Amino acid sequence: MFFKGIAKYGVHRILLKQPKGGKSHKEAGGEFLQLTLNTEEAEMASFFEMLRKRWDQELFVCVGLDSDIAEIPECVSGDSAKKRIVSFNRDIIASTADKACAYKPNFSFYEALGADGMDALYETIEAVRILAPGVPVILDAKRADIGNTNKPSATFAFDLLGADAITVHPYLGAEAMSPFLGREDNGTIVLCRTSNMGGGEFQDRLVYVEWNELGDLVSEDISTLAKVCG
Amino acid sequence: MFFKGIAKYGVHRILLKQPKGGKSHKEAGGEFLQLTLNTEEAEMASFFEMLRKRWDQELFVCVGLDSDIAEIPECVSGDSAKKRIVSFNRDIIASTADKACAYKPNFSFYEALGADGMDALYETIEAVRILAPGVPVILDAKRADIGNTNKPSATFAFDLLGADAITVHPYLGAEAMSPFLGREDNGTIVLCRTSNMGGGEFQDRLVYVEWNELGDLVSEDISTLAKVCG
Repeated sequence: MFFKGIAKYGVHRILLKQPKGGKSHKEAGGEFLQLTLNTEEAEMASFFEMLRKRWDQELFVCVGLDSDIAEIPECVSGDSAKKRIVSFNRDIIASTADKACAYKPNFSFYEALGADGMDALYETIEAVRILAPGVPVILDAKRADIGNTNKPSATFAFDLLGADAITVHPYLGAEAMSPFLGREDNGTIVLCRTSNMGGGEFQDRLVYVEWNELGDLVSEDISTLAKVCG
Repeated sequence: MFFKGIAKYGVHRILLKQPKGGKSHKEAGGEFLQLTLNTEEAEMASFFEMLRKRWDQELFVCVGLDSDIAEIPECVSGDSAKKRIVSFNRDIIASTADKACAYKPNFSFYEALGADGMDALYETIEAVRILAPGVPVILDAKRADIGNTNKPSATFAFDLLGADAITVHPYLGAEAMSPFLGREDNGTIVLCRTSNMGGGEFQDRLVYVEWNELGDLVSEDISTLAKVCG
């Protein structure tokens, strides 16, 4: 269980971690200090600021971390499914830290391992903070419940895991999404037209919209756009 | 971690559990034997058979197990959030076993506790098997991803937790729901018009449907109905 007694991320969590090779925190020296500074900076940034900073560096690739244990190559070490997934993810994060605009773990692949999967997800996000500080994490959870029930999901995503953004469904309306939308520093990415096979079954149905209602829709779009652009 | 080395439910799991009060399995006597027989019967039944049996007894109440740790009364004992949630749920299950048509834990309230929440969810479903054998469990997870990504969610719900049915979203189409729909013994409950405030925002939009397409829709409805009725 890695969820208790650890600050969201930044200085506190880094100091709680023991450096490798049996060194004391002091002995770990410069590199350790640099990480601390980087994550301090990251701790203050909202999802939108982090994303904008990556875009400004012309970094636009969102790296998926949809680690299916059945597909992980044999060469990845670890004596449990959890350890092998985290090890695999760490290698991906270390190899892409200077290229990624964001990291996006998909919740489903972690829930397949039950409680161990929740730990694997937490450790994966922790690895992003350490190996790629300043790169935002989008939890691809496609949450889609009513407002009251989305509250604990927001707690899980943002407070417990420390993700910067989450993917959600629009089907239950804006009020249902409010526990996510109400978090000013976190991103809420709403599914519109999905690209999967069969996505058009319902999403491509012609919908009757009145002209005055269309005006409202445009206003909504603009206010959303304004929010995304900070 | 309660997920490993335990059979789905029925005889094996019951025998693995130590009876209360330090008694041996043999000493536990009649009541224990009766539980074993009941769960053996339950193990063979599909979600639809279990549900039909409850309906035939004129039992129609679906008991929600949306246990928000912040709302659980102080009198509920336990030295951790997980234990208090499971204890609270056990009391509800024991009090309603002869009245419930189904039990429906909502995933969000459990994920708020991370790895501990996954264990609490597992132990809650286990409590239904022991205290209310034959009553189906609907995992209210409102899963809503693409087909490939829904596969691990189906593994989690049906194989790991041993739930009998799951709630899902239709927005991504039938192909996306196939990992759930493909499980013949498990129920897949698809959200249509939800009753939450704001549910009508998108769901009440007028949709243009051609007459020949309407014919297809009706056929679909009938085939779904046939499936539900076994």
